[in-house]
Amino acid sequence: LVSVLSSAIIVYRLPWTWKCSKLLMKFIHAGLNTIAMILAIISMVAVFEYHNISSIPNMYSLHSWIGLTAVIFYSLQLFLGFAVFLLPFAPVPVRAALMPIHVYSGLTIFATVIATALMGITEKLIFSLKNPPYKASPPEATFVNCLGLLLVIFGAIVLWMASRPHWKRPPEQNAKVLQSIGGPPGGTEAESTMTDGSSADKSELRINSEASRKQNLKLEEAGQRSTM
Amino acid sequence: LVSVLSSAIIVYRLPWTWKCSKLLMKFIHAGLNTIAMILAIISMVAVFEYHNISSIPNMYSLHSWIGLTAVIFYSLQLFLGFAVFLLPFAPVPVRAALMPIHVYSGLTIFATVIATALMGITEKLIFSLKNPPYKASPPEATFVNCLGLLLVIFGAIVLWMASRPHWKRPPEQNAKVLQSIGGPPGGTEAESTMTDGSSADKSELRINSEASRKQNLKLEEAGQRSTM
Repeated sequence: LVSVLSSAIIVYRLPWTWKCSKLLMKFIHAGLNTIAMILAIISMVAVFEYHNISSIPNMYSLHSWIGLTAVIFYSLQLFLGFAVFLLPFAPVPVRAALMPIHVYSGLTIFATVIATALMGITEKLIFSLKNPPYKASPPEATFVNCLGLLLVIFGAIVLWMASRPHWKRPPEQNAKVLQSIGGPPGGTEAESTMTDGSSADKSELRINSEASRKQNLKLEEAGQRSTM
Repeated sequence: LVSVLSSAIIVYRLPWTWKCSKLLMKFIHAGLNTIAMILAIISMVAVFEYHNISSIPNMYSLHSWIGLTAVIFYSLQLFLGFAVFLLPFAPVPVRAALMPIHVYSGLTIFATVIATALMGITEKLIFSLKNPPYKASPPEATFVNCLGLLLVIFGAIVLWMASRPHWKRPPEQNAKVLQSIGGPPGGTEAESTMTDGSSADKSELRINSEASRKQNLKLEEAGQRSTM
């Protein structure tokens, strides 16, 4: 689940995908998130069935409260993302206004999911290790602690990748935007063959990507991404 | 601890502080973080002494591993922040290069501290509630779960405030930078009385803040903050 979520988050951050069409990348992003949502639902059903069979109450723990909150916000995020960014109805200003919120809530949900996993691991270690108990540090405990630590490191790397401006996918048609914020009009050569990657020469694309990447740095966080 | 950490994080994000000098704000940021570090050390000493008195092993849980990792990175962060951003030796390009890393690691440590607190709450509820146990959802369990959920909401709000570009403190001398990236030279009026807030007229300052705030939006993430 966490790995699918992560790949969905960083899918725009892989430079070799910048030559793929924006629409294809959106479909991959939406598809991976849909897979993650399905996995989340399957695991929740499994947990509820396991609790019911073992006569363990449902939804009593902080882990379950925060996990359910994350899943509810995640389904909202998926629904809104689909309605605003994938369906062709939302106008560009609406997309531009909602994109920072979409990015923030996506990353916050991701961090919350990792925190929920860590709480779940803690619970599981306490409940399952009895002889010797968790506090006697049997090999399983040390092993699973290492996994938990790796999960934190992994999450930190994903958040790093997702928040570096120069790893952001370059915008497609940024000439207009550049002019409107007073940038050099010489930057228009990066306007772009990238919307249709199929027929274009690859080396030219690479140069264009590089040019747009540099412009992108200047445009960062200006809330003026033209192709959202 | 979390509240001191949070105030240290958002201290640059309070518009009414933009008229204070950058140096004063840096001292407040460093001072609050030092207080948080002292509180973290006091609580760790308390935990180790409690464990020793009660014959509970130290450092066996995932909570303790991740918590100690966070404290180690936090002390590194504090030391590097002091050496690079507070002492007058580091040249501006070094500060500019390290600032995104400082911001990223600060926010990641903050999120990790919240995750550690949630794991600690989970452990404490499992170990302390015995009759009725945690899974029977006694009022204490529900109350503490609510506190945990509020902690997540609080963390999310702090991360929101810290990541909004228009809540960023406006740069002090941004005219040079603006020209170098091709911005309108008309923006220079925001170059700034803000370095010395004591003698300046307040309403003028407010206008300047507003002007620099807008320029700041354009400069965001360009890695060209002139006053770091």
